[in-house]
Amino acid sequence: MCRGDDVHCPHFEAHYKAFREDLNPERRSFLKSGFLAAGGLAAFAGGARLVTPALAQATAARQRGPASYHHLPANAETVHWGYFSKKLKPRIEIDSGDIVTIETLTHHAADDLERMVKGDEGAESVYEWTKDKKGVDRRGAGSTDPAVYKKGSGDGQGVHIMTGPVYVRGAEPGDVLEVRILDCVPRPSANPEFAGKAFGSNAAAWWGFHYNHLLGGDKREVITIYEVDATGGKSWAEAVYNFKWTPQTDPFGVVHPTIDYPGVPVNHSTVTRNFDVLKGVRVPIRPHFGTLGLAPTEADYVDSIPPSYTGGNIDNWRIGKGATMYYPVSVDGALLSVGDPHASQGDSELCGTAIECSLTGTFQLILHKKADLAGTPLEELGYPMLETQTEWVVHGFSVGNYLAELGANAQSDIYSKSSVDLALQDAFKKMRHFLMTTKGLTEDEAISLISIGVDFGVTQVVDGNWGVHGIVKKDLFSGRA
Amino acid sequence: MCRGDDVHCPHFEAHYKAFREDLNPERRSFLKSGFLAAGGLAAFAGGARLVTPALAQATAARQRGPASYHHLPANAETVHWGYFSKKLKPRIEIDSGDIVTIETLTHHAADDLERMVKGDEGAESVYEWTKDKKGVDRRGAGSTDPAVYKKGSGDGQGVHIMTGPVYVRGAEPGDVLEVRILDCVPRPSANPEFAGKAFGSNAAAWWGFHYNHLLGGDKREVITIYEVDATGGKSWAEAVYNFKWTPQTDPFGVVHPTIDYPGVPVNHSTVTRNFDVLKGVRVPIRPHFGTLGLAPTEADYVDSIPPSYTGGNIDNWRIGKGATMYYPVSVDGALLSVGDPHASQGDSELCGTAIECSLTGTFQLILHKKADLAGTPLEELGYPMLETQTEWVVHGFSVGNYLAELGANAQSDIYSKSSVDLALQDAFKKMRHFLMTTKGLTEDEAISLISIGVDFGVTQVVDGNWGVHGIVKKDLFSGRA
Repeated sequence: MCRGDDVHCPHFEAHYKAFREDLNPERRSFLKSGFLAAGGLAAFAGGARLVTPALAQATAARQRGPASYHHLPANAETVHWGYFSKKLKPRIEIDSGDIVTIETLTHHAADDLERMVKGDEGAESVYEWTKDKKGVDRRGAGSTDPAVYKKGSGDGQGVHIMTGPVYVRGAEPGDVLEVRILDCVPRPSANPEFAGKAFGSNAAAWWGFHYNHLLGGDKREVITIYEVDATGGKSWAEAVYNFKWTPQTDPFGVVHPTIDYPGVPVNHSTVTRNFDVLKGVRVPIRPHFGTLGLAPTEADYVDSIPPSYTGGNIDNWRIGKGATMYYPVSVDGALLSVGDPHASQGDSELCGTAIECSLTGTFQLILHKKADLAGTPLEELGYPMLETQTEWVVHGFSVGNYLAELGANAQSDIYSKSSVDLALQDAFKKMRHFLMTTKGLTEDEAISLISIGVDFGVTQVVDGNWGVHGIVKKDLFSGRA
Repeated sequence: MCRGDDVHCPHFEAHYKAFREDLNPERRSFLKSGFLAAGGLAAFAGGARLVTPALAQATAARQRGPASYHHLPANAETVHWGYFSKKLKPRIEIDSGDIVTIETLTHHAADDLERMVKGDEGAESVYEWTKDKKGVDRRGAGSTDPAVYKKGSGDGQGVHIMTGPVYVRGAEPGDVLEVRILDCVPRPSANPEFAGKAFGSNAAAWWGFHYNHLLGGDKREVITIYEVDATGGKSWAEAVYNFKWTPQTDPFGVVHPTIDYPGVPVNHSTVTRNFDVLKGVRVPIRPHFGTLGLAPTEADYVDSIPPSYTGGNIDNWRIGKGATMYYPVSVDGALLSVGDPHASQGDSELCGTAIECSLTGTFQLILHKKADLAGTPLEELGYPMLETQTEWVVHGFSVGNYLAELGANAQSDIYSKSSVDLALQDAFKKMRHFLMTTKGLTEDEAISLISIGVDFGVTQVVDGNWGVHGIVKKDLFSGRA
């Protein structure tokens, strides 16, 4: 089946045309500039960036031809649910410099199937679940032994619907993959009743930081459905209704007293919807990908929840349109996957989730070969790094590379290591490393600068491997020649 | 001695004229608008604020006459070093609505006496220290028994040079004091050699978060001196030189192997100054008061380092010009003191200090009586709250009110409770309280909004009682009638 993922495909022109028409005029600037035709690399090179002119030149010299455009839809054939894996067959193969539009689906869409799944062929194929079968059988990184999880389909360890992986030709361990997020837009509801709108779900769930501190000692989970403008005209989201989670029986007959398993369809006849919620409150949208990263080499199936050195579930709302991520490549082909799309999130993602809302992203992937990195700011990059027009951001975690550091039981042990204190320690060390290697500072210079000019924030406290980010503004270096 | 602290003083006009001339044109807007003449309260009332029109009216009705202007210089007579105390004699008494300019001195000025003290009469009187006497004898909240600390003058518990206290007539426990920071400017060096410049010191000290994580396991303290433009023309600070701390012998003959005592004069013939430091790095200035708050009732002498429910050493760089703080009043007269001035700081103040730089602030203090608070957003305010033009900010600590919660040894025990995790918990609870009481949200609404629209950052990890702040943007409520 042709999925528009290949520039040599006979339907490529049609796919490309559809892609252009999908974008509204404000979002087309990178196409107008002849970006794609020019090969992309040069056109995007302006501004202070981690990629030095010499590295850009070395990288461009390796490019084999004009950049191609690809489109990877989200459906049961193109997603994997709940894990990263080096064992996965790539869903698409591209060259460095190519541009790829990747559709992503939120794993919370079953909280309101009417608004977030109905009529959407791709989402329906993923969410399909009858008493006899699931559209995507395996969910989570755990065992698929029926004895371990009833009806056998992963044990729920790992939750995100990930689109991919994307195989980048020529990528090898030791290289760095630069991922430019060219665009990031909400996926409109396919239900004609909600034309022009998109929706997201926020679950205040048992894994939230608030859960053991509810007033009166209560233990309840509450889901709030938000409406997001799909046309780009409004910069805010608004709540539609909320409801308290009640035990839900899945199509296999298993009862879920709490939100213990991603994608359990909520039977709305069993819950009470409250439409009098957050009246007049407008939540500024910050569309971004909660989970974006590469497959690590340390394990065959890696729970998608804890972020690590190859990225993954960082849950930093700054990883949206206009941002560039840099990841150390850990396996051949890099194997990039994208999921956990969010319409908005605050620093900390305190209650366990963001506004979980399907998005479509357009990315340019650029491979920097290890041999070209010596003496550049990307040499020794051992952690996921974010660059925006004005900032560099390092990501610290409770345990930097938990898969390597915690041994055989790393994937369960990491959940007991959650600590903001440790994440700050890690973020400090990464920021020091960044300033020393990238800006050539001594340790004493770096430490002084960190204290007076770097801001540390709480990225998330809900993903097992808790995160703290450090932000350094590029302006600090404006006085340099 | 007349210190210009009284509108009825015969020299008031001269002091007021000098004050106006001190301000450069850009900084005069609040005077131009006839602010002072108009009584101040009405002129400042625009915009969405925590003070409702009804509360503003009730507060204004209590005002006894036109607002007065006062000036409280910093010198040995007007500062207290290292503590808050309800036992202190007020240095100035004012009425609600009055405006007071308060000079503050950094407690790190002895790192470079030439630049930060020499020729400055006020600073010289405070820093005076010969083998026979100190300008300010007591330093710190601890014992003054000579057996406890050699030469007896406080035991170094508490470090900040605090100007004040200011007594607000009519203030009683249960009231709320609103503190508007109208202005905040660097104190120029009084040494003619450095005309037009101000200076600050950044000490990467043993109490810093980095100290046990130095590369190679080293244990060194490094001081970096920064230059700050005192004319307002440059928006950044630049490093001048740094040096490694070596054991310093104070005028009483006590040797200080580490930075264990505030205000030990550094003998520059014993250190090696390195001028090749942070070349071309421009640190955006964020002038603010690290320590600003009221005397708590729980103890007679309270270490100035750990922040608490009456404010104090919050070390949030947002507490600068244009910001408004709200504090619960704990003792009669409120007893506001100001110190720990900073030219800039990052979120976390990671190495132990900011750019510690003397500043002069102009404040308007407005007393809201308990009887007027019922049904207003300030009812039940039990924590220090920050409001800017665009944001509300709550401050969480490892232990919210450590003096009350930790018992008799609270002032030493708090240092072993330091934790960002706990501070985030406290910040979450305060933000929930704020949204429920001030915005009338249900707990479920508040929790969802916190996760998707509130940003939590690390305020500081160096003040014993570590801090996390939660920021909610006013824009979120722009859709309300």
